[in-house]
Amino acid sequence: MSSSRKRRICFPITSRAYYGRSQLLLKKLHQHPGVELELMLGGSILLDKYSRHVADDIRDGGFTISASLFNVIEGGNHVAMAKTACLTALEVTNTLYTSDPDVVIICGDRFEQLAIAMAAAYLNKTIAHIEGGDRTGSIDESVRHAITKLAHIHFVTNDDAKRRVLAMGEDPKYVFNTGSLDVERAACVDADITTGELSAYGVGHDVDVAKPFLTVIQHPVTTESDNRLHLETTFRGLAALDMPIVWFWPNPDAGTAEMAETLRHFREHHEAATEKMRFITNVPADQFVALLRRTACVVGNSSAGIKECSFLGTPVVDIGGRQQGRLSADNVVRTGYSADEVRAAVTKQLAHGRYAPSNIYFKPNASQSMVDVLTSIELYTQKRFHEAS
Amino acid sequence: MSSSRKRRICFPITSRAYYGRSQLLLKKLHQHPGVELELMLGGSILLDKYSRHVADDIRDGGFTISASLFNVIEGGNHVAMAKTACLTALEVTNTLYTSDPDVVIICGDRFEQLAIAMAAAYLNKTIAHIEGGDRTGSIDESVRHAITKLAHIHFVTNDDAKRRVLAMGEDPKYVFNTGSLDVERAACVDADITTGELSAYGVGHDVDVAKPFLTVIQHPVTTESDNRLHLETTFRGLAALDMPIVWFWPNPDAGTAEMAETLRHFREHHEAATEKMRFITNVPADQFVALLRRTACVVGNSSAGIKECSFLGTPVVDIGGRQQGRLSADNVVRTGYSADEVRAAVTKQLAHGRYAPSNIYFKPNASQSMVDVLTSIELYTQKRFHEAS
Amino acid sequence: MSSSRKRRICFPITSRAYYGRSQLLLKKLHQHPGVELELMLGGSILLDKYSRHVADDIRDGGFTISASLFNVIEGGNHVAMAKTACLTALEVTNTLYTSDPDVVIICGDRFEQLAIAMAAAYLNKTIAHIEGGDRTGSIDESVRHAITKLAHIHFVTNDDAKRRVLAMGEDPKYVFNTGSLDVERAACVDADITTGELSAYGVGHDVDVAKPFLTVIQHPVTTESDNRLHLETTFRGLAALDMPIVWFWPNPDAGTAEMAETLRHFREHHEAATEKMRFITNVPADQFVALLRRTACVVGNSSAGIKECSFLGTPVVDIGGRQQGRLSADNVVRTGYSADEVRAAVTKQLAHGRYAPSNIYFKPNASQSMVDVLTSIELYTQKRFHEAS
Amino acid sequence: MSSSRKRRICFPITSRAYYGRSQLLLKKLHQHPGVELELMLGGSILLDKYSRHVADDIRDGGFTISASLFNVIEGGNHVAMAKTACLTALEVTNTLYTSDPDVVIICGDRFEQLAIAMAAAYLNKTIAHIEGGDRTGSIDESVRHAITKLAHIHFVTNDDAKRRVLAMGEDPKYVFNTGSLDVERAACVDADITTGELSAYGVGHDVDVAKPFLTVIQHPVTTESDNRLHLETTFRGLAALDMPIVWFWPNPDAGTAEMAETLRHFREHHEAATEKMRFITNVPADQFVALLRRTACVVGNSSAGIKECSFLGTPVVDIGGRQQGRLSADNVVRTGYSADEVRAAVTKQLAHGRYAPSNIYFKPNASQSMVDVLTSIELYTQKRFHEAS
Repeated sequence: MSSSRKRRICFPITSRAYYGRSQLLLKKLHQHPGVELELMLGGSILLDKYSRHVADDIRDGGFTISASLFNVIEGGNHVAMAKTACLTALEVTNTLYTSDPDVVIICGDRFEQLAIAMAAAYLNKTIAHIEGGDRTGSIDESVRHAITKLAHIHFVTNDDAKRRVLAMGEDPKYVFNTGSLDVERAACVDADITTGELSAYGVGHDVDVAKPFLTVIQHPVTTESDNRLHLETTFRGLAALDMPIVWFWPNPDAGTAEMAETLRHFREHHEAATEKMRFITNVPADQFVALLRRTACVVGNSSAGIKECSFLGTPVVDIGGRQQGRLSADNVVRTGYSADEVRAAVTKQLAHGRYAPSNIYFKPNASQSMVDVLTSIELYTQKRFHEAS
Repeated sequence: MSSSRKRRICFPITSRAYYGRSQLLLKKLHQHPGVELELMLGGSILLDKYSRHVADDIRDGGFTISASLFNVIEGGNHVAMAKTACLTALEVTNTLYTSDPDVVIICGDRFEQLAIAMAAAYLNKTIAHIEGGDRTGSIDESVRHAITKLAHIHFVTNDDAKRRVLAMGEDPKYVFNTGSLDVERAACVDADITTGELSAYGVGHDVDVAKPFLTVIQHPVTTESDNRLHLETTFRGLAALDMPIVWFWPNPDAGTAEMAETLRHFREHHEAATEKMRFITNVPADQFVALLRRTACVVGNSSAGIKECSFLGTPVVDIGGRQQGRLSADNVVRTGYSADEVRAAVTKQLAHGRYAPSNIYFKPNASQSMVDVLTSIELYTQKRFHEAS
Repeated sequence: MSSSRKRRICFPITSRAYYGRSQLLLKKLHQHPGVELELMLGGSILLDKYSRHVADDIRDGGFTISASLFNVIEGGNHVAMAKTACLTALEVTNTLYTSDPDVVIICGDRFEQLAIAMAAAYLNKTIAHIEGGDRTGSIDESVRHAITKLAHIHFVTNDDAKRRVLAMGEDPKYVFNTGSLDVERAACVDADITTGELSAYGVGHDVDVAKPFLTVIQHPVTTESDNRLHLETTFRGLAALDMPIVWFWPNPDAGTAEMAETLRHFREHHEAATEKMRFITNVPADQFVALLRRTACVVGNSSAGIKECSFLGTPVVDIGGRQQGRLSADNVVRTGYSADEVRAAVTKQLAHGRYAPSNIYFKPNASQSMVDVLTSIELYTQKRFHEAS
Repeated sequence: MSSSRKRRICFPITSRAYYGRSQLLLKKLHQHPGVELELMLGGSILLDKYSRHVADDIRDGGFTISASLFNVIEGGNHVAMAKTACLTALEVTNTLYTSDPDVVIICGDRFEQLAIAMAAAYLNKTIAHIEGGDRTGSIDESVRHAITKLAHIHFVTNDDAKRRVLAMGEDPKYVFNTGSLDVERAACVDADITTGELSAYGVGHDVDVAKPFLTVIQHPVTTESDNRLHLETTFRGLAALDMPIVWFWPNPDAGTAEMAETLRHFREHHEAATEKMRFITNVPADQFVALLRRTACVVGNSSAGIKECSFLGTPVVDIGGRQQGRLSADNVVRTGYSADEVRAAVTKQLAHGRYAPSNIYFKPNASQSMVDVLTSIELYTQKRFHEAS
């Protein structure tokens, strides 16, 4: 790349979560004089069902959007998930070929991100990966590390992750522990959310945010086959507590169809048990942080419980295998898929109350650290397994 | 998997090289009473241009073929390569969904194999990977290790590779150094090839296999942009030696279009320089080994030079970055992209003559070792980064 | 085709409507000794949201199913519809190539059927088309006639349609007015539906089928941009009548997303107006006919109003452009997109009551006539525009 | 469309032939103040093998190119052709969705053009079709008329075609006999071609354009299965005449692989018979016209023989079914697939010499007539079968 021209950076966004957590980074890249930033939108971010208005917000942000690719194949099962990834990669290839960026930024571990990384690698683009090296369950575990092996620049969020990325043969000169974007963002937000604001989202009953309430975020575990049962278990465990609950619909991984159907079934056929529940697709990123801060206990298997809540000090009950092996702070209690275990763990967390903030995922200026690297580091494409001498 | 039913094993074949090297394994799996073997054909194996008659041979072999997928996108450049991979994965997903195997076997490091591995992983299949852990250049280096991070069972060909696969966090119980299938096969072949047989393949002039001749196999290096120039360099380096040459057309990676055009140009416009050359698409696997055994020196960047020739003792001049970092025996001399260097290295190898056989890639019964593991090991799908304690 | 082997007939099913109306034909083809019937499932038939259990019923029917292709791209807009069609065609090509049928049967005018017809034509298959030659609105009008120009055998449902198919240059020897499969089926059904059975489907309030009620089936008109507004107009027009309503969700054409959202909005925010309404995805084909027979007036733009109801004598208010130009009997009153017009038309139809049966779409034994042709007619592939002499 | 903004016209180019014949139209649209012209490149136009340098020429022409889509699937058979069409449509959908043109121009009858028309129709674009209504053989016959039924504006080249388009139910207000773009172009070209210029293209022996020579252009007939045999027949028929021949490689329809292989076989193994032959991929459009003008007789099944040569007066021997039924002038002699027939017909044409120019396909200003319509006519999307009153 000639030093006289801007670096062209492509940032594919395929879910609202990636947009939420990346806002600070996107803003800084967008404003940097040495960067031409281009967004590519695809996946669930374009679908009302999962991300109402998020894509519109992005468009209003003044960003250059190189493509809006409808490529989510319906089914909510493994075959639909696999084909969605493949179709995404096929279409992204065309867009990357046309826009010809210097760097493609891949976030996290969602299944379609590996497909995009593969396309970018085959087009000889330099790939920067955010959040490699963590251990978790689900297909995310495989996806995350496979992306690491395609990526050239690594932004990890904690020292354990850094150690693993290096063990996998990545070049130490290109591995940076910048801390987590999600947590940096959570640390910056001072917005609050009111009962009225919350009631503008989703369906069901009002939840008074001034009184203790639970937030449930339980996504499919793609490598398990009984997601419906696991959701019912959580439902039974929590119903007995008779507390107000803000319940988020699951994300569009394999298993989502049966989980969404189960939630709809609860609403239609368990009116008494759901009369203190509100079911929400999503809330804007700032209000999401505010909600986590106000929640008495977060229940489910979202990474927000492990990451953002470690810094916010919000008690978390993490259920099942999805986050298994992920570095966590004291705020997290883990349980299996058992209604009694879940109920007991939540009761214990409610008794404990909030935790002291942890910095395991936090470094100030995570986004600025990434911008500094992305704008100055020498780019390369030929990878070599780096062996510790 | 219930012990009462056969293991269903799916073996996708996307290039003639994979079929050639895997014949022993395929035959043993096909005959094993505990295995239902299903082949999937795609990629260049179906195209006359690259693999004339190979697909027909496979069909004649009595195998069950679950799908024949035409999915090579023309162009011979990076975008065509990337889209070929994505389209392959999309179509393979349908086939895997229908045939529902227990295990999918992924070979080596070709770009479309990562795409197939991705599809298989998203469908929650157990993936067995052959030949992980090696170091090389080209996009193969990234592809190989990314496949490792999606795979559950690993058959590596040497101890260095095993060490790397373990470093990447794979479970030691599932990593096996079985030696190389290619080399096992080369060791088994006692077929020979005659001048007449050789002259039945390809175009150009006859090469007398009873007299010293060179074999050139130079494929594109996908992470480099001057494949045409590098081929011309080899041509100039060798033309000065005035020796008979069997020259293989490049495989269909990005860059193949310009390399094939360059070879056609040599033929049309450098008649004198090519009057001792024969240009060949491929020869049957047994005769290929015979050819390597008879060749005075193999020139180019094929893995056959590093692997099969290590055992056969054939002198090799390995040019450029494609095999860079790969474990090699004494028979290999490495050069850069320089006509003088290439000529000097070949001259030196011709002076040296054949080498003693090396066992760095060889273990007897590689294929049987794989069959034993594939039919008996406990299958799993949820991966976990395994950290050495 | 040799006379000594069975004709292989491929029947792609991409929506529950096609399965419902084709059951008699499928059964007869399945049982015919000279036919090997193979179904291909794709599109919305595989999705719970649109066709719960229909695909399972098909599988239970003992049919050979050559492929189940998840290929509906989410979005509910034009781009998703177009891409769904293209992806369907791409995948169908593989299946047709493998199963190699003699004849592919294309039904009606749904957008994905043209894509399948195109794939079949390019594979040199003989195409039989059911229900060509009609005039309507929406993209269906273009799709239907384009399929005619790819098809070799034509089963039309009325004389006007036959005249048009011939005008378009089709060979009179291959154009047959067999009457409508839908209407043949409606004529055969003597099942009834009870209030209890109806209440087992969908969500909302019970509708007593023993008392007068309306049935609303309003699908998107893909060539119009204000489907949401048009649905609201119907809602307002009917709400004033204060009658029980069985309301079907729209089919998955472009515009479905905004229409489905509008219906959900009615349910959540207009509780009073919807308290006599039941919202239903689908009912089994026999019960659907029973429902049409019991309905006081069918409202919307479904072809069932024009076709089945012409024979059943059920009053119909047909709204807007979707069925514009389609041959209809006296039972149909047409209106524009106006709440007042809709209300007035329904009131008039309720006052009139049931109509005498019409035979404009009815011939006894439609399905048998098709089977006779499909099993005996000489097949061809090269089309020639036939000019009346 | 508001009158205050330019009409956005999208012109997809998928073969060199379409570019050649459309140059005058493209130039006029590009320069028209009321038009924003956007080209989309795909199919064989991007491939060296078929269209060397044409895509580069287009890029040099100053046009806006909205996408360059590599989407030709290798195989040269029906399944590859079908999948190429489907993949093209899938990718074109994305491009049309982004560029959002008012009008999409579809040319002729190539298989991928129907796929593009389908995508455009589903996106509710107004489609203008050039060269509808002709009768021919091959799959082109089906494709052409199916496009007519998707298109809104029709530019036909002769009165017979107009009559057929109207019979198919198109609105007379939107059907225009403008004459043929190919022939307008042929009439404008006064360039010549020299022996030296011709020898710069392709491979084989020099052909002296000052002396009598034949030009062979024989493409696959996709609805026939013996394209290889038919080409051999032509070869045998012509070899006996011992005349110089300029032989064009076939276009990339199904069957092209075996035909190309046959030509390569002639070159390698029939050196004597081919020693007066030159094999050419393509020549620039102007020189192609000059070549037709100088040719003693055009042999094969190209539409150029029927159309351009009718005006140029060049004798033509049209072989087999590909152009069967197409309106032709006195310059065309038709034969079956017989070496004797072909030889006799060529001999007869050589004896006759050039014909008087015919105007059956010619009107002056064809391209300007199209521009006038495209820039002024009221656009619509909802089609209705128009019945003659």
